[in-house]
Amino acid sequence: MNQADCIFCKIAGKKIPSKIVFEDDEVMAFEDINPKAPLHLLVIPKRHIEKVSDIADSDAGLMGKLVLTARDLARKNGLNDSGYRIVLNCNRDAGQEVFHIHLHLLGGRKFTWPPG
Amino acid sequence: MNQADCIFCKIAGKKIPSKIVFEDDEVMAFEDINPKAPLHLLVIPKRHIEKVSDIADSDAGLMGKLVLTARDLARKNGLNDSGYRIVLNCNRDAGQEVFHIHLHLLGGRKFTWPPG
Repeated sequence: MNQADCIFCKIAGKKIPSKIVFEDDEVMAFEDINPKAPLHLLVIPKRHIEKVSDIADSDAGLMGKLVLTARDLARKNGLNDSGYRIVLNCNRDAGQEVFHIHLHLLGGRKFTWPPG
Repeated sequence: MNQADCIFCKIAGKKIPSKIVFEDDEVMAFEDINPKAPLHLLVIPKRHIEKVSDIADSDAGLMGKLVLTARDLARKNGLNDSGYRIVLNCNRDAGQEVFHIHLHLLGGRKFTWPPG
């Protein structure tokens, strides 16, 4: 279910390059090209889902897997003791720019509150 | 698996009051007492899990359910067209203050980038 004009579908399909840090049959993680922290990764489902508001009930496991993938990548990068922030932006007010769901994993510095 | 000194376990067990907006057997959502947006809800598992880094693989469905609950509450509050931000803070660098996992759902205004 790739969408021809979606940059993250193209990344998932390796039509355009990215710095991939994890991949399995359902999920891919790669470096954000405009990082906002020493570690800034994006975790995406390979399947095209436009927005968090479009998630189906049957996608609960997939959404959980995105969080678990972030947990694993944070651990692998030695962030468990210091900490990290996970962000999901839905639609314009949140600043969602690519309309293919992506979970931001940010770590390696202190984060302020509110979160933007 | 409540923890006696955990404020969110007390909220889940209704030992202390909160403005509850959703509840089922596994999940509860309530208003943040220090809101950072017109809508600022916390979605928690009733079961005590200290940090995102402590999530077990078997909790994937539960984590997905937290996201789906946020999706539902955002929709109910009319935020689908404008948008919303979901944040999970893990440990000190992220500013996690209550060590019982909680997903922040923020909406009703524009959010800046980076997210804190």
